[in-house]
Amino acid sequence: MKSRAAVAFAAGEPLKIVEIDVAPPQAGEVLVKITHTGVCHTDAFTLSGDDPEGIFPSVLGHEGAGIVVEVGEGVTSLAPGDHVIPLYTAECRECKFCLSGKTNLCQKVRATQGKGLMPDGTTRFSYNGEPIYHYMGCSTFSEYTVVNEISLAKINPEANPEQVCLLGCGVTTGIGAVHNTAKVKAGDTVAVFGLGGIGLAVIQGAVQAGASRILAIDTNAGKFDLATSMGATDCINPKDHDKPIQDVIVDLTDGGVDFSFECIGNVNVMRAALECCHKGWGESVIIGVAGAGQEISTRPFQLVTGRVWRGSAFGGVKGRTQLPGMVEDAMAGRIDLEPFVTHTMGLEQINEAFELMHAGKSIRTVVHF
Amino acid sequence: MKSRAAVAFAAGEPLKIVEIDVAPPQAGEVLVKITHTGVCHTDAFTLSGDDPEGIFPSVLGHEGAGIVVEVGEGVTSLAPGDHVIPLYTAECRECKFCLSGKTNLCQKVRATQGKGLMPDGTTRFSYNGEPIYHYMGCSTFSEYTVVNEISLAKINPEANPEQVCLLGCGVTTGIGAVHNTAKVKAGDTVAVFGLGGIGLAVIQGAVQAGASRILAIDTNAGKFDLATSMGATDCINPKDHDKPIQDVIVDLTDGGVDFSFECIGNVNVMRAALECCHKGWGESVIIGVAGAGQEISTRPFQLVTGRVWRGSAFGGVKGRTQLPGMVEDAMAGRIDLEPFVTHTMGLEQINEAFELMHAGKSIRTVVHF
Repeated sequence: MKSRAAVAFAAGEPLKIVEIDVAPPQAGEVLVKITHTGVCHTDAFTLSGDDPEGIFPSVLGHEGAGIVVEVGEGVTSLAPGDHVIPLYTAECRECKFCLSGKTNLCQKVRATQGKGLMPDGTTRFSYNGEPIYHYMGCSTFSEYTVVNEISLAKINPEANPEQVCLLGCGVTTGIGAVHNTAKVKAGDTVAVFGLGGIGLAVIQGAVQAGASRILAIDTNAGKFDLATSMGATDCINPKDHDKPIQDVIVDLTDGGVDFSFECIGNVNVMRAALECCHKGWGESVIIGVAGAGQEISTRPFQLVTGRVWRGSAFGGVKGRTQLPGMVEDAMAGRIDLEPFVTHTMGLEQINEAFELMHAGKSIRTVVHF
Repeated sequence: MKSRAAVAFAAGEPLKIVEIDVAPPQAGEVLVKITHTGVCHTDAFTLSGDDPEGIFPSVLGHEGAGIVVEVGEGVTSLAPGDHVIPLYTAECRECKFCLSGKTNLCQKVRATQGKGLMPDGTTRFSYNGEPIYHYMGCSTFSEYTVVNEISLAKINPEANPEQVCLLGCGVTTGIGAVHNTAKVKAGDTVAVFGLGGIGLAVIQGAVQAGASRILAIDTNAGKFDLATSMGATDCINPKDHDKPIQDVIVDLTDGGVDFSFECIGNVNVMRAALECCHKGWGESVIIGVAGAGQEISTRPFQLVTGRVWRGSAFGGVKGRTQLPGMVEDAMAGRIDLEPFVTHTMGLEQINEAFELMHAGKSIRTVVHF
């Protein structure tokens, strides 16, 4: 079938809105009509060419919401008409990882997904007869996309898709990192580096957890009002200080914070985030995705004296099992998605969404088809 | 009073056996007659001059056992005749760290201890009228030493001091890191880098925890027999492989180990120890002490995909509270200290103990006075 899509034909170039061909879903696959998609920094990161896994031409987008149109052979958990959120972290419920009870990093389709392919090693997208690759198993920048059954969370059809699409990545990543990875408890102190969608979601998660103090750090002071309205108790611009930001935070918090979160993807900030943690017990969680080949460093003394360095992917959330509940939380007001959606626009304007993001003017732009 | 002591007069020089003067214990302090002391790599590290906190002239030694001779004003928990193990990690039971319930890193005397001084800012040791500094709050290379009350664990007087002195550092550090820091459970897989006293203690702790597989890694194959006899299931010499050791271990263990322990102090090995952990849940614990200014590095992707990087000091053990129980464990055979004591000698031969250690011929030499 034909589908309007924003295609990334080459690294560093704007997306092009074209009509692509979408092949029918094969065994275990589902054809989804995407109604809304967020535009995330990870899409921009891949489009920039810095992502070592980036493949072109491809249909980017991984933060969407849609409706099942057709299911392939053997698909039993979904039927046409179901409302879904595509998952870039699948949940097969049968691999070593899913069965471990220790991680959400299902590996069932990881190898082919990383190559922009469906599990049978082929792609369902083409343009003028040439293959177009999938992206993160989602490709939500196409009105019609093919996704694995194990990569779709079935959600309440009453949910507002313009908002809950953000649970497909940023908001879930931030809130989940607080609850599932760090396990922040009431009274804990928290530092959040980077006040984009993920950082603001971390703040929301920290508020839910009952954190006693939430330090919000960004070099763009224009983000401080929103951070404060969401629950940040202190907003800090590293540019306002001569000392390294970790020293500023240690001084402000009588020795450091209980938990810190890096939501940027900057390896120097990752170091600062670790080193602003309290000696003896502070834990730092890396959420941001760094550029290819970049490395984090610190003195091992930082760890030997009790700090812990962790990371989090998709907030440690098992998508098929936990995302439907998070959608219910959003519908009940326990998760407030409204402030994240700062802009909405049609697919034809999608390159403007990237520009707004690069300029630091948007938290999330949601594109509707 | 006069005391025989092995004094480190300068970095890089052998210790000299001299008679020093020891001043009486002040308020909160205790005069201890050391009967036995281990010689640990940390002593050698400081003596080498690589330790940024190293101060000379000083009385080294921090792995001892002894008997209380005299107590200073206000000391209530100890009396002459009590058998004790000096603690380089104090336990005051009243500072923020002790009260946190999250760490053993009491900070009460940390600042002065790091300067080789007692809490009042002076030293109890002198030689020919010139001050000699303390070391790690213990200075067990002197027959008589002055230690803070909060830096002494009172132990069962029936314990064998030639063995339980090793609970003052190496053995406790290794066993404690397994139970308190990593919290290894039955069935877990473990990799141990470095088969000195701490590495062998990690193996013993892993056996106690019921680890299903214990990989022992060292470039000195001469240590493999002892490691195997203590419970290692696989002994690996990185020199026997062309691939990086982390890749060798990942291949051997179907994706990596559940826990790894670095017991050397080599920042490159620390990286390998992290990267040999299983994606999704593997945790690496740094125990070894790296040289001044050295840093650990890795790609943040290692953490984002679920590995955790930690450190451990004194095995996370609260000395006054937990060490007496570990002494009982040793007396009951639940901790086997006998294999660690490979050599014993008098104080006059203490430089030989350093030579045996540097040559990789000893696990621990215990010096008796």
